[in-house]
Amino acid sequence: MHRLPFDEVQHTLAAVLSKLGFTPGRAATGARLFAETTCDGVYTHGINRFPRYVATIRNGSVIVDTEPRRIAAFGALERWDGRRGPGNLNALAMMDRALALSREHGIGCVALANTNHWMRAGTYGWQAAEAGFIGICWTNTMPNLPPWGGAERVIGNNPLVVAVPRPGGHVVLDIAMSQFSYGQLESYRKRGEMLPVDGGFDLEGNLTRDPGAIERSWRPLPIGYWKGSGLSIVLDMIAAMMALGKATHQLSHDPVFEHSVSQMFLAMHPAAFGPEPGAAQIADAIIASLHNSKPASEGRRVRYPGEETLRIRAENRKLGLPVEPAVWAEIQAM
Amino acid sequence: MHRLPFDEVQHTLAAVLSKLGFTPGRAATGARLFAETTCDGVYTHGINRFPRYVATIRNGSVIVDTEPRRIAAFGALERWDGRRGPGNLNALAMMDRALALSREHGIGCVALANTNHWMRAGTYGWQAAEAGFIGICWTNTMPNLPPWGGAERVIGNNPLVVAVPRPGGHVVLDIAMSQFSYGQLESYRKRGEMLPVDGGFDLEGNLTRDPGAIERSWRPLPIGYWKGSGLSIVLDMIAAMMALGKATHQLSHDPVFEHSVSQMFLAMHPAAFGPEPGAAQIADAIIASLHNSKPASEGRRVRYPGEETLRIRAENRKLGLPVEPAVWAEIQAM
Repeated sequence: MHRLPFDEVQHTLAAVLSKLGFTPGRAATGARLFAETTCDGVYTHGINRFPRYVATIRNGSVIVDTEPRRIAAFGALERWDGRRGPGNLNALAMMDRALALSREHGIGCVALANTNHWMRAGTYGWQAAEAGFIGICWTNTMPNLPPWGGAERVIGNNPLVVAVPRPGGHVVLDIAMSQFSYGQLESYRKRGEMLPVDGGFDLEGNLTRDPGAIERSWRPLPIGYWKGSGLSIVLDMIAAMMALGKATHQLSHDPVFEHSVSQMFLAMHPAAFGPEPGAAQIADAIIASLHNSKPASEGRRVRYPGEETLRIRAENRKLGLPVEPAVWAEIQAM
Repeated sequence: MHRLPFDEVQHTLAAVLSKLGFTPGRAATGARLFAETTCDGVYTHGINRFPRYVATIRNGSVIVDTEPRRIAAFGALERWDGRRGPGNLNALAMMDRALALSREHGIGCVALANTNHWMRAGTYGWQAAEAGFIGICWTNTMPNLPPWGGAERVIGNNPLVVAVPRPGGHVVLDIAMSQFSYGQLESYRKRGEMLPVDGGFDLEGNLTRDPGAIERSWRPLPIGYWKGSGLSIVLDMIAAMMALGKATHQLSHDPVFEHSVSQMFLAMHPAAFGPEPGAAQIADAIIASLHNSKPASEGRRVRYPGEETLRIRAENRKLGLPVEPAVWAEIQAM
């Protein structure tokens, strides 16, 4: 594992994106998002994901030079067409639009059809929180999870992000509806480790912590069993219905052809009704109640969603972004 | 177990509510909500819950003759004060208000402070869906769940409802952030049964399916472990911050003094931009993809959230509402 300065990573990725046809500004933004994702410790969706992202550009799943277009607007609600543009740039623009609608109407909502994988879901939550807004967004995905009571992958893991601004550290929840991703299952298997909790069914239909058994059955667990299964279904329904876009069951099972997904972006402002110190105090008091509560293991402290990200971000900013040599060599050769 | 006609149940409960000071209209509505909840098969929050509801009126937690008051409004977003009124009537009024805001602005949102337990969460999802709207609402609760990594109950199980209208059967998800409620743990224990999946920790800190062991440790599991714990935290933050109301850590641990909770109500319309047959077709196609998928057990069918409710509702409407004689005698003596 090497470590490279943030700026060098961003510069290198931007150069690749420019060669692929991105304008300089869009190349710089796209590269920044990948670098920030690695910087925040989400290594699956940062630099390591870049080669697959490039593959989806080269195979035509992602169209680099398109921007989303507004299809319909009614008050605080808008419907946009992502035109199969880059999922991360589209999502950034749509959360910005939801923030603008929220400034105007108290709450804002954008439904986006025909977009692409937005890489790290949490990015758009941090974006909202850094602007001082509550942000809620989700995406549907290709069918990668069996519904509760089902043996076949027909629902998505549909990542959901809920972000709450807080001057002392934003609270950003970024959760897929599967307990573990296939990437995580693979990591555990390669390390020869069992999962910390049941992660799916084996081929005999028994719950198991064995990552390889779940990879063989293609039956990872939804979070909360029947509950996360239901949540995945309604998130898909709302995104596809509001955007008039594709639903999970219509998307390709092949990751590099998982294009034209549907997404939702909501924003609201705690101070929509006027300057309000109360909301920030409420946020701080909730976090304090967590920090001051008794931990399950002595010497540890209960953490809020996003807390660990701040620590990793500071560390990676200081020491440089961790980069796998093989991945970096592949990117440099692009 | 007796069965009584829906109208007789509603009439009896309404008479009790009238004696407690409800106006005739509010008594009838409150009684209807309890009867409908039992009719839909949510026996924990219907007739069986009525005596505890009455106890919270008698002890002053719930104030019968108050209605919510609007505190602030900005476009599609409003803040209301529930004035410690009856939680179910307050919630019904606030979802109605969110629907009205959505008609005007495409999406509508109400944050409600100082309200009370809304009984069955799903009620307000069915309300939105029956009006043709997508409805999302949640409440915070007293601290009844340890956060992930914590040993002490400082977060709530904060029920979340997501409802999607569909002419062929609304899709209504109603999930608490705990895998099992204390009521469910008690039921399993009394039947001498183990939980179908791990439901919490025992006193030694091991995951267990033993309901009694979890009751002793007060450590039920959040859905999806760390994921549901995080979701509970952000739902509490948003409700308390937007409503300027109380957060979970400020609420009583005693169920009959769990007053002044904070809630959120969101509504949006799939046809906000004009008549739109596409959304209903998308909904039907998603449900068809579930129904047509391979079940985990032969002869069963994958169900969508709310599907079973329709079957139970029809059965209980036809046969009468199931009533426990002891509970019914208690209510008749009120």
